[in-house]
Amino acid sequence: MDKNAPIGVFDSGVGGLTVVREIMKQLPNERIVYFGDTARVPYGSKSKETVITYARQIVKFLKTKEVKAIVIACNTACALAFDIVKEESDIPVIGVVKPGAKAAAASTKNGKIGIIATEATIRSGIYEEFLSQRNPEVQVHGKACPLFVPLVEEGLLEDSVTVEIAGRYLQSLKEYNIDTLVLGCTHYPLIRDTLQKVAGEGVTLVNPAFETAKSLKEMLEKNGIESDRTETVTDHKFFVSDGAEKFKVFANTILPCDVEQTKDINIEQY
Amino acid sequence: MDKNAPIGVFDSGVGGLTVVREIMKQLPNERIVYFGDTARVPYGSKSKETVITYARQIVKFLKTKEVKAIVIACNTACALAFDIVKEESDIPVIGVVKPGAKAAAASTKNGKIGIIATEATIRSGIYEEFLSQRNPEVQVHGKACPLFVPLVEEGLLEDSVTVEIAGRYLQSLKEYNIDTLVLGCTHYPLIRDTLQKVAGEGVTLVNPAFETAKSLKEMLEKNGIESDRTETVTDHKFFVSDGAEKFKVFANTILPCDVEQTKDINIEQY
Repeated sequence: MDKNAPIGVFDSGVGGLTVVREIMKQLPNERIVYFGDTARVPYGSKSKETVITYARQIVKFLKTKEVKAIVIACNTACALAFDIVKEESDIPVIGVVKPGAKAAAASTKNGKIGIIATEATIRSGIYEEFLSQRNPEVQVHGKACPLFVPLVEEGLLEDSVTVEIAGRYLQSLKEYNIDTLVLGCTHYPLIRDTLQKVAGEGVTLVNPAFETAKSLKEMLEKNGIESDRTETVTDHKFFVSDGAEKFKVFANTILPCDVEQTKDINIEQY
Repeated sequence: MDKNAPIGVFDSGVGGLTVVREIMKQLPNERIVYFGDTARVPYGSKSKETVITYARQIVKFLKTKEVKAIVIACNTACALAFDIVKEESDIPVIGVVKPGAKAAAASTKNGKIGIIATEATIRSGIYEEFLSQRNPEVQVHGKACPLFVPLVEEGLLEDSVTVEIAGRYLQSLKEYNIDTLVLGCTHYPLIRDTLQKVAGEGVTLVNPAFETAKSLKEMLEKNGIESDRTETVTDHKFFVSDGAEKFKVFANTILPCDVEQTKDINIEQY
């Protein structure tokens, strides 16, 4: 295994870039190959079978780039396809859900944790499963928030409409008196300020992107495959299934490096 | 050509059912084979190349059902892929855009027409093109409304948030003093009441679904392929690329007949 091979990161679209941002911060010497499935976004309303098909195609594509490890930087894909991708893979795979659940379990004091995510992630019960494995006493309350992704993509990050919708979505979680809220979709860190305001200052927000980068570091070390480069990598590669130009503009607003090249590929061929 | 062969209707998802509803009303003796691309919805943010690829796959699938004509019941697919689908097809093809534009041109008195639609439809300039062909004097103002589809799918048809967002989207069109507004996306008839309230009673709303069914009737007659059945058809067929059960529930809320069977198919194979 080439220690300096890239890490493959994928998401249903642009949301996974919040995970890439954390990896770049915490692991500056690693090269990233990113794939965003912008042609078939969103995954959050799709069935398990469909998301598994898509994840398999993407892994097959990333393997052609000779990646040394795979990060599933999409909560929905992780919730629905992690087990299968891991089982079928001969290289290490990590997702965003387990690190997020771990951090939430460590953060809560009153044992009441809220999860906000897409319909498919909530329906899967994956966060409840991981959390009860870590601590059977914990109470988990999930809430699907299907309008957050379109609101983020429309750029209404601190808009009154986003505040109103967040108020409705978080109402039941506030009634449960949660003290920890997991941002269970990679788009949500982009409306973190609005969510903190609506949830109240007493609630700790957990961003799985941050925790995932930490877990990735541990996993690379455990497998002895961390890069031995000493310089910061800047020539990461980005691939999308549609709209490379639009993706590049968005990526440049949230990543600390210049995304110069992004390529469109036909993912259905894999 | 079998006069009693079915008519193929397709859309990116459930929106095209508003067109199906009109066809069932105006042409009760015709059998419909519907395909909704629920796995890859929405089309409104995708590139022309991708939408053309999807439309070709769908037409190929519908041909396996031996349809006698094709209705592109999706404004985005019609805006981006109509010419190619028509050129490559050996059976008649109609879309929703031309009938909608025709009705708008007939309706306006002050020559100022507003178009609300997805980003891709607005960017294509297709309504402007058809309208200026009919009447070069007409002024057309387009506005992309990307949040309407998720708001409709969330069921917020007359909600205060939908009213607020509609107020923002329609603001510039109101300033242009339009007297006619085209609902250029098949989801929008479902928020017709909210749009009428926000646009004001003096603005005529044009629903291309209604006009498309009228055009379909004329086209079948012109080609001598209208069905000679005398009974109302009830055994229409519905296919989707994902989530057949969810689709069926939605279809049963808006269609006048019972949708008993809906099948999932793998559209990428076509």
